[in-house]
Amino acid sequence: MSRAVPKRPSLKAPPLPALEGNHSKLIGRLAGFEWKDVPLEAYKSNTETWKGITRRELVGKRGETVDFHVRYFEIQPGGYSTLEKHEHAHVVIGMRGVGEAQTGCFIWKVSVGDVVYVGPSDPHQFRCPQGASEPFGFLCVVDAERDRPIPVSGLGVCRICE
Amino acid sequence: MSRAVPKRPSLKAPPLPALEGNHSKLIGRLAGFEWKDVPLEAYKSNTETWKGITRRELVGKRGETVDFHVRYFEIQPGGYSTLEKHEHAHVVIGMRGVGEAQTGCFIWKVSVGDVVYVGPSDPHQFRCPQGASEPFGFLCVVDAERDRPIPVSGLGVCRICE
Repeated sequence: MSRAVPKRPSLKAPPLPALEGNHSKLIGRLAGFEWKDVPLEAYKSNTETWKGITRRELVGKRGETVDFHVRYFEIQPGGYSTLEKHEHAHVVIGMRGVGEAQTGCFIWKVSVGDVVYVGPSDPHQFRCPQGASEPFGFLCVVDAERDRPIPVSGLGVCRICE
Repeated sequence: MSRAVPKRPSLKAPPLPALEGNHSKLIGRLAGFEWKDVPLEAYKSNTETWKGITRRELVGKRGETVDFHVRYFEIQPGGYSTLEKHEHAHVVIGMRGVGEAQTGCFIWKVSVGDVVYVGPSDPHQFRCPQGASEPFGFLCVVDAERDRPIPVSGLGVCRICE
């Protein structure tokens, strides 16, 4: 009989991690752009300045010790975020469809994998063109500690050229 | 002759933004997973503990005022990151292919759009399986101020079950 080879402890299949808490976890994406147990939220409670946009808080508000929040936003065709400004910067990464990012008076086309940096106090808005074949979805990473946005009107959006 | 309608100033086509600086900018993705003007970097200078992995610094190291850094890593089939730990947490978002994230003694399969949170001081490693049809690419967001990683051996990786 051959000598038994000591068995190396096998690595375990992952348990279902709790979404809440500061432990390592997988926040698994389901079909489409939904994540297990992550609720769909309204973009903002005030609905006067935006249209057709939803928010999912992925990381940063459930006990995780990071200096930033990661959110997923989705804008339906014809929808848009509030035209606003704030001192904190935004980092946006396209994940689905094609949209537009306006910063000041410039408009960038944003496709999957494109990265947009919105500098401090630049008025900005994200939009999904009317007639787009699918929503415009993007990750948005922001500092955990940040100032509140201030809506701006269509005028005075660009401190460079106005 | 009809009266001329005052022309509304048109929004401008975006200029090519400088990659360096704290202004709004688009960091455009080119074909594949490359970004305009963003250099491909070695994952680490010490090559003893990792294999087949590259890094691209997307946001946070070029004058941007954010409390975090956004990086894109890509691991070739059969490659892996250093098995290591640190006090700061990681947020990883799958962008290309399928890979594995080991945290402690658990292994998660990570596909596009899946989010992994690596909790403080959990030993962890990212891998692309040998024979995978494409590299495993992911975004990794970390605090701008963070402690240095400490490599760990194959033993003692899990403070929960060892």
